[in-house]
Amino acid sequence: MAEFDLIAALRARTRHARDDVRLGIGDDAALLQPAPGMQLVACTDTLNAGVHFPAATAPQAIGWKALAVNLSDLAAMGAEPAWALLALSLPQADAAFVEALADGLARLAAQHGVALVGGDTTRGPLSLTVTALGQIAAGAALLRSGAQVGDVVLVTGTLGDAAAGLEIAQRASQGGVDAHAAWLRQRLDYPAPRVAAGLALRGLATACIDLSDGLLADLGHLCAASGVGAEVELDALPLSPALRASVPIAQAQAWALGGGDDYELCFCVAPAQVDPALARVQAAGVAARVIGRIVATPGVRVRDAQGRDYAPVRRGYEHFA
Amino acid sequence: MAEFDLIAALRARTRHARDDVRLGIGDDAALLQPAPGMQLVACTDTLNAGVHFPAATAPQAIGWKALAVNLSDLAAMGAEPAWALLALSLPQADAAFVEALADGLARLAAQHGVALVGGDTTRGPLSLTVTALGQIAAGAALLRSGAQVGDVVLVTGTLGDAAAGLEIAQRASQGGVDAHAAWLRQRLDYPAPRVAAGLALRGLATACIDLSDGLLADLGHLCAASGVGAEVELDALPLSPALRASVPIAQAQAWALGGGDDYELCFCVAPAQVDPALARVQAAGVAARVIGRIVATPGVRVRDAQGRDYAPVRRGYEHFA
Repeated sequence: MAEFDLIAALRARTRHARDDVRLGIGDDAALLQPAPGMQLVACTDTLNAGVHFPAATAPQAIGWKALAVNLSDLAAMGAEPAWALLALSLPQADAAFVEALADGLARLAAQHGVALVGGDTTRGPLSLTVTALGQIAAGAALLRSGAQVGDVVLVTGTLGDAAAGLEIAQRASQGGVDAHAAWLRQRLDYPAPRVAAGLALRGLATACIDLSDGLLADLGHLCAASGVGAEVELDALPLSPALRASVPIAQAQAWALGGGDDYELCFCVAPAQVDPALARVQAAGVAARVIGRIVATPGVRVRDAQGRDYAPVRRGYEHFA
Repeated sequence: MAEFDLIAALRARTRHARDDVRLGIGDDAALLQPAPGMQLVACTDTLNAGVHFPAATAPQAIGWKALAVNLSDLAAMGAEPAWALLALSLPQADAAFVEALADGLARLAAQHGVALVGGDTTRGPLSLTVTALGQIAAGAALLRSGAQVGDVVLVTGTLGDAAAGLEIAQRASQGGVDAHAAWLRQRLDYPAPRVAAGLALRGLATACIDLSDGLLADLGHLCAASGVGAEVELDALPLSPALRASVPIAQAQAWALGGGDDYELCFCVAPAQVDPALARVQAAGVAARVIGRIVATPGVRVRDAQGRDYAPVRRGYEHFA
């Protein structure tokens, strides 16, 4: 096994060491110095080949995404990322593959000042488990459970792009892709965790979650944790120009509601805080939009412009033209 | 997928919550309060079915071992375990399997006061990645890199048992097993991380590593990190009565040197500290034994009672009678 190749590859790509890493890759464990008084924020997520990414995905994208989905969880807490560990299972030693994977992971880590401090390389079906560790002041974390009836629901960025990107990936062998398709595929392969937006929402958002399973599912988790429900306006869903140009509106809306892998933030604020929240998130480098409100009745309902309950199209009903 | 079943199963088994867990399983990430001034000790290790454990291993043992191999890494640093996260890939939802796995993991966690604070459940080939987090005072960690020429090399417990247990597991279909075989199999399936011994060695051991890949390989890592070599006395290797009774001595010695999965500690102390080290480790509940010494010449050499270089038997050369 290429265990020591991977360690060397990661070490070589993580020279931007943090002062708080007292001992990094190479011993039985890493030694890290938490900032005084801060809470530690910890999460772990696995990506399995063929389940969480198409088997033909570029190794750079696999490495990037394995870290991105974890930084997205830290972002949803409003935490500042600090350190990460990578457990990698590989069917065979392949130095070029491992180096490309390390490139992708290290590129995103550098963007967020994250130090790779440890890991494990084993033989097995291709799988990556990253554990991300961040820090936040006690009491400042954004939880799923704080939404109040009357709060306004917002999301960052645009929704449904990754679901479109997945369909493009699955059809990639059928011919060339245009600029929109390439952009949508990028959204699937290189999600941008909304770390700065999460940090900006501390003290403002009453609840927050990242969108990994799709808006309906994840907003449903937030509502369940808060003991509330939500109403979403179908026409308010933020859809990218690329998605609008690529598929009929009904398909775009279905993906925005039910598609996964967008890694945007869905959050709630009191009505008086909508404008400050929009401004702060904008200043953090991403747009946000109001999509609905929190209500007392449990569950998530979607209404169209005429106020009718939304009847989702079947997934896959309409394909790319 | 049974994601929420797993979370429920783990939650139900981790009621021994720690005061420093501010938010456990159920949000985007866990919130943990490190003790003031302490360093964080972090490691992650994966177990893949058919690679790290026989496919027919009991789920309780799989859950136990996934945590044990990580606590063993913390033990090798002299750290006090605190928290763990579990990323589990499962081919299909199987509530009984998941509950048994959670039982095994939670039983070991309870023994060491470890709180399970988060995780991820995904579809995929059976695989577990645990991340263990512990704490230690700044400067107190046992590293691989501190061994000095003239230091004495010791190990805890007995060596080679797990390799024998693996052979037993692979031959299990061929008939019944005796008490020795059952004990050796337990050593493979339910390794006891030497956490108390690691804690007892703080301030005493100059270097320490846990034995996951076998004594020769792991002591080699320690020597390489320290820029030294080691000489090991073949006759000093600690062999269990069960192992001695089960295979010829040459096979037992070969497994003690080259077999993996023992999860004992190998550590170095200055000659004057041997007796205190033996006493402290004994008080921590496990025997330790002197097996050799640190020398200037790089590499690990094994000598027999006549002072001759040891020529290892080929792995598998002698089987169980």
